[in-house]
Amino acid sequence: MTTIGDKSGLRVVGTRPVRPDGVDKVTGRAMFGADLHLPGMLEARIKRSPHAHARILGIDTAKALALPGVMSVATAADFPEIPHEVAMAGDGMINYRHLSHNIMARGKVLYHGHAVAAVAATTAAIAEEALELIDVRYEVLEHVLDVEAAMAPDAPLLHEDLFTAGVDPAPSRPSNVAKKVEFNKGDIAAGFAVAEVVVEGRYTTRPTHQGYIEPQACVASWGADGQGLIWSATQGHFMVRAYTAKMMGIDIASIRSIPAEFGGAFGGKTLVYLEPVAMTLSRKAGRPVRLVMSREEVFRASGPTSGSVVEVKLGAKRDGAITAARLVIKLEAGAFGGSSPINPACMCGLAPYDLPNVAITGYDVVSNRPQVAAYRAPGAPIAAFGVESTLDELARRLAMDPIALREKNAARIGTRTVYGVTFHNIGFLEVLAAAKAHPHYSAPLGPNQGRGVGCGFWFNVGGNTSAAVNLSEDGTATVASANPDVGGSRASLAMMAAEVLGVPYEKVRAVVADTASIAPSMLSGGSRVTVSAGTCVVQAAGKVVEELKKRAALMWDIPVEAVEWKDGAAVPAGANAGGFDPLPLAAIAADAHRTGGPIGAEVSTNVQGVAPGLAAHICDVEVDRETGRVTILRYTAVQDVGRAIHPSYVEGQMQGGAVQGIGWALNEEYVFDAEGRMENAGFLDYRMPVASDLPMIDTVMVEVPNPRMPFGAKGVAEVPIVPPTATIANAVRSAVGVRISDLPISPPKLLAALG
Amino acid sequence: MTTIGDKSGLRVVGTRPVRPDGVDKVTGRAMFGADLHLPGMLEARIKRSPHAHARILGIDTAKALALPGVMSVATAADFPEIPHEVAMAGDGMINYRHLSHNIMARGKVLYHGHAVAAVAATTAAIAEEALELIDVRYEVLEHVLDVEAAMAPDAPLLHEDLFTAGVDPAPSRPSNVAKKVEFNKGDIAAGFAVAEVVVEGRYTTRPTHQGYIEPQACVASWGADGQGLIWSATQGHFMVRAYTAKMMGIDIASIRSIPAEFGGAFGGKTLVYLEPVAMTLSRKAGRPVRLVMSREEVFRASGPTSGSVVEVKLGAKRDGAITAARLVIKLEAGAFGGSSPINPACMCGLAPYDLPNVAITGYDVVSNRPQVAAYRAPGAPIAAFGVESTLDELARRLAMDPIALREKNAARIGTRTVYGVTFHNIGFLEVLAAAKAHPHYSAPLGPNQGRGVGCGFWFNVGGNTSAAVNLSEDGTATVASANPDVGGSRASLAMMAAEVLGVPYEKVRAVVADTASIAPSMLSGGSRVTVSAGTCVVQAAGKVVEELKKRAALMWDIPVEAVEWKDGAAVPAGANAGGFDPLPLAAIAADAHRTGGPIGAEVSTNVQGVAPGLAAHICDVEVDRETGRVTILRYTAVQDVGRAIHPSYVEGQMQGGAVQGIGWALNEEYVFDAEGRMENAGFLDYRMPVASDLPMIDTVMVEVPNPRMPFGAKGVAEVPIVPPTATIANAVRSAVGVRISDLPISPPKLLAALG
Repeated sequence: MTTIGDKSGLRVVGTRPVRPDGVDKVTGRAMFGADLHLPGMLEARIKRSPHAHARILGIDTAKALALPGVMSVATAADFPEIPHEVAMAGDGMINYRHLSHNIMARGKVLYHGHAVAAVAATTAAIAEEALELIDVRYEVLEHVLDVEAAMAPDAPLLHEDLFTAGVDPAPSRPSNVAKKVEFNKGDIAAGFAVAEVVVEGRYTTRPTHQGYIEPQACVASWGADGQGLIWSATQGHFMVRAYTAKMMGIDIASIRSIPAEFGGAFGGKTLVYLEPVAMTLSRKAGRPVRLVMSREEVFRASGPTSGSVVEVKLGAKRDGAITAARLVIKLEAGAFGGSSPINPACMCGLAPYDLPNVAITGYDVVSNRPQVAAYRAPGAPIAAFGVESTLDELARRLAMDPIALREKNAARIGTRTVYGVTFHNIGFLEVLAAAKAHPHYSAPLGPNQGRGVGCGFWFNVGGNTSAAVNLSEDGTATVASANPDVGGSRASLAMMAAEVLGVPYEKVRAVVADTASIAPSMLSGGSRVTVSAGTCVVQAAGKVVEELKKRAALMWDIPVEAVEWKDGAAVPAGANAGGFDPLPLAAIAADAHRTGGPIGAEVSTNVQGVAPGLAAHICDVEVDRETGRVTILRYTAVQDVGRAIHPSYVEGQMQGGAVQGIGWALNEEYVFDAEGRMENAGFLDYRMPVASDLPMIDTVMVEVPNPRMPFGAKGVAEVPIVPPTATIANAVRSAVGVRISDLPISPPKLLAALG
Repeated sequence: MTTIGDKSGLRVVGTRPVRPDGVDKVTGRAMFGADLHLPGMLEARIKRSPHAHARILGIDTAKALALPGVMSVATAADFPEIPHEVAMAGDGMINYRHLSHNIMARGKVLYHGHAVAAVAATTAAIAEEALELIDVRYEVLEHVLDVEAAMAPDAPLLHEDLFTAGVDPAPSRPSNVAKKVEFNKGDIAAGFAVAEVVVEGRYTTRPTHQGYIEPQACVASWGADGQGLIWSATQGHFMVRAYTAKMMGIDIASIRSIPAEFGGAFGGKTLVYLEPVAMTLSRKAGRPVRLVMSREEVFRASGPTSGSVVEVKLGAKRDGAITAARLVIKLEAGAFGGSSPINPACMCGLAPYDLPNVAITGYDVVSNRPQVAAYRAPGAPIAAFGVESTLDELARRLAMDPIALREKNAARIGTRTVYGVTFHNIGFLEVLAAAKAHPHYSAPLGPNQGRGVGCGFWFNVGGNTSAAVNLSEDGTATVASANPDVGGSRASLAMMAAEVLGVPYEKVRAVVADTASIAPSMLSGGSRVTVSAGTCVVQAAGKVVEELKKRAALMWDIPVEAVEWKDGAAVPAGANAGGFDPLPLAAIAADAHRTGGPIGAEVSTNVQGVAPGLAAHICDVEVDRETGRVTILRYTAVQDVGRAIHPSYVEGQMQGGAVQGIGWALNEEYVFDAEGRMENAGFLDYRMPVASDLPMIDTVMVEVPNPRMPFGAKGVAEVPIVPPTATIANAVRSAVGVRISDLPISPPKLLAALG
């Protein structure tokens, strides 16, 4: 079904039809998480901790419950106590006990903004008034925010029962280090011994938020028969269903979870914060409940990515061949251990390179911050910031072109990664060649201007996935996806179905089916949807074509082997076939009731064989030496996209990832006061880049098709955020000769360094 | 998978779990057709004809459009002109041109209440005000209401282009007779020639309405991208999707149709009245539109069943053997030809009996009444009223027990019907035996009391159907049905899935999936859902079991042939299996991501092999000779149900059908004034039976399983409405010696007959 290396046969894949959700979004018709209204619906609000770390001595909800209009109040006492249970979910592991304690604090509050109680009332104003009437008594404890401070032996302990995992022998004393991971390949000491040049660096980053436009929002409705309905803004409605059931101690199938249209996520909607709380309030009140976060709550209580310390040491020969690489990564997990992306950070940092000797150590460390959540290529930009900055220094030391240095060491087919995977398909060399050949790379620069390059890797994900393709009576088709549409999957899935069926894109409509209507699918994350749901859709459409051929054979009364499918029609072929005219899909569909019934197919599978995403970015900056302000003059993102199913969406992903990385590099950071309270919990003070800050991001899609995925597709959404931080730091270094190794490269910091 | 004649192995099928929708319905949580609220939603109203028959000379909507708050107005000019096209849909044929002209009159209005224009406005009050501002100029025409009057040569013609179909040679002049049908078997003249007794009768019935509690209601939302969403109360959301698309001239897949919970239908929601109008208003206004009928509109403009004339002539030997049967049925179609249930009326009337010589003629006749819609076993109660009344007279003439007469002539396995079907499975003799043996049949009667018996037949329907069974991560299961739940199918489908999977009923939750999430299915009608969707569910659950066995084999590393499924668990069996403990479904589901991905199956098929439904009813009445009022003293419904999946629902169907038949027999009728306006368009004046009118209806479920359907099930919902009209007329005859052959047997009519 796939067409590798030859686009000439493709009619739909690779074109740029109008996105199916676009019109609804710009006209306001799209229904987001907060847009559902159910009869009798209550409004809920959450009371949050005013302390970064405190013991809860008691919660008195009596006054709140007595307030007219208040219909229910919930605290941790309304949720079952859950043992530590780490389960596979989404694109990582989830600890259900942590999740439970995060959605409603139990015993202790672990960060400023931690939920302690919730109220559902007939109006939002009453719910807010009721929050004030809930009396929570605290014993305030010392808090700790930053990763290395939390690792100190005398740091305040968040969890008395937390003993570092992954060390041998097991520690006898609790600490804030939840987990240590190690990845080794070759002989690191021998590698450094033969090195002719060694460069080292220490790099630090601050937590950044995904910054999605739509705050978390849901509507939950509990029925007296023990069945619940959830409408919510999420990357995974099956995840919402499973997590909510687990948090409430009920059967998964008792919940029907319907995905709302949602306004951005970038990994931030891969957990539940509100749904189990809203459902519990609904169960207690006997009425539907809407629960929506404010922007301030999003910042204070939903997961940003980790703050980090990254130490890099590279040894190389004078020709640029890297002989050894040592990487130490320390990541903040926020309040609960295991929440940081320490594994992908360790996996991705050096993965673009074919290195003989590698040693990587990673630490997952709790501190009094909101629980970390996934953020686009989780961990990879943090590791790449250190690695790609150090590579830039190595190139300088070797007086080597930075792209040539990377080409010298580039991973290729057959390269075995430090985490044990051998690449069967990888387009890094092609990406580097395209970057080097791009006019941007050789364009002249002016004073105070500099150019940086940086690369990035994301392994991409496949996994459990479901989708269905069904024909209507007139031959138009529906695609039912089990994955919320993060970045255009309704378009790309409909396009793939249209390609296989041989019909125009406009004859196929894709929707996201609810949890009761299709088999479960892992959430939309890991850059997995186009390839994984695409695999299901292409297989399902293929089954539909086989069925259409059978029906045509019945209608013609010839053997099915004598029927071929061509240009959206059955055609007779071979000696056993008569001289029939082509029978178009619509004609077969119209007769389906006479030839065996409705035509459709659902496919569920665990998708294997995805290929990694590789990117190289080029950035020109100009530094204002008076203010320390960095202006992005020109930005080019080059990426191996496998096969661009819908090129406009792919370009959008590349541009969007670059822009998020630029924000992370230059401006975004959480600022805390001495009591551990975030001081900039709003878009006015948390500075994300806006259109006027940026030039148009140029994109180069390099197509190195992956033959195991439909039409050669690869995940494209995450890797674009990986290169920008180092790319910009390298460009600043090039412009003003100063290496900034602590993000963000904000004007005061750069001014001080220039200083 | 099915267990025929042996219920001992069944754990779930045949039990009576709480109905899954029941709690929602009694607590008010269920969302019906009018309960969806979309942001920016408008309210719509329809302007209707004040004349029974008139030419539309012009419609001026300018003033209405100018009214502040009015957002759009629609007339027939907003719908495409559709050629005559008769297509298979639901459980019958639909003429799309008629449907289009019924939802919005074009050129002529054909009945009082016929839609002529519609308005969407910001409030219902504004919409109603706007209706008054629409100026429609009419040329009033002569009208005709009743079937025989409409058949008269000089009757006012509804359609100048209507020429009777089914007559040879084709007529040269138009008439109101849309269709003539004939069914013949044997030699009718010879049959009467050998008859020793001949009885004849002429029977007439009035239109009756389905009387569902919830009026037609929908919300439609059109997107600027040409995709529409419909939420509506319907028996078939795929039907709504297809009909609305056809009425608007758009692709079927461009509409997503979501079935609301709905409050009764009984065949009355097998057509669209509102959805294309609401969608057109939404398209013109650019906002969602809600359109809900009032009860008055339901009576005036949605389909009742036909008024009728039925002529019956039976010839028999003295021993009761019927030698010839002649049946003439004339049915009102309402405004559009082909709408009456003339075919099923002709098919069902004599089908309970094995008769050598039969001649049946049927007429479908238009008149100035609302278009007839399906009503529970469409046409069968009308035919049965004539046939079963005449049989009662024949039994009297022969001095024979009326049940014995029916046993003498009963259809049995091998009987070939007049419409060409040979019964492979039929439980009529068993039903008659159970009726005769019932204590009710031999209980004593008092003065002015009488007992009647009557029988009924419905062929039952299979057809195009889809359903899916999917497992959650914890092993609980969802059943996705493509059929709106009319009478408990969510319960029966979940039960069948639970039976096949070997898990408790509570672990399976069934929902009705929307049109974009599953393959198309014929609407819920014809008593087809339990058997047809049940077939899909049992097959899908069987595929899930096969997959579970495969996964268990993988987990155990033994051949799949060495795995059996028993009591909801995989168990090793045979020489190649090890000594493993049973592996329950939940354990396999929890590991599914490691063994190949999510587990689920969708099945779409054209279900064949349903068996007919047969019923015998016994009724005792007491007649008040002073008022003519008939009191139902005791009522027993005996029916072949094949296998009662959920006996409470089956009993409910039997009771409900009997009650509707009782209403039809005693009270319900449309009363028109001289101008052709219905005078009793409301529940106060249209007299349906209420609980206080009736005794508890006793039910006897006779289980003659149909081996071709899951667990032996048969359609049970329609046949219970077939016997009551004659059963009651026969009881009245028995009580007071008067044969009433014109329904309803209302007090004034009976009083007049009593003289």
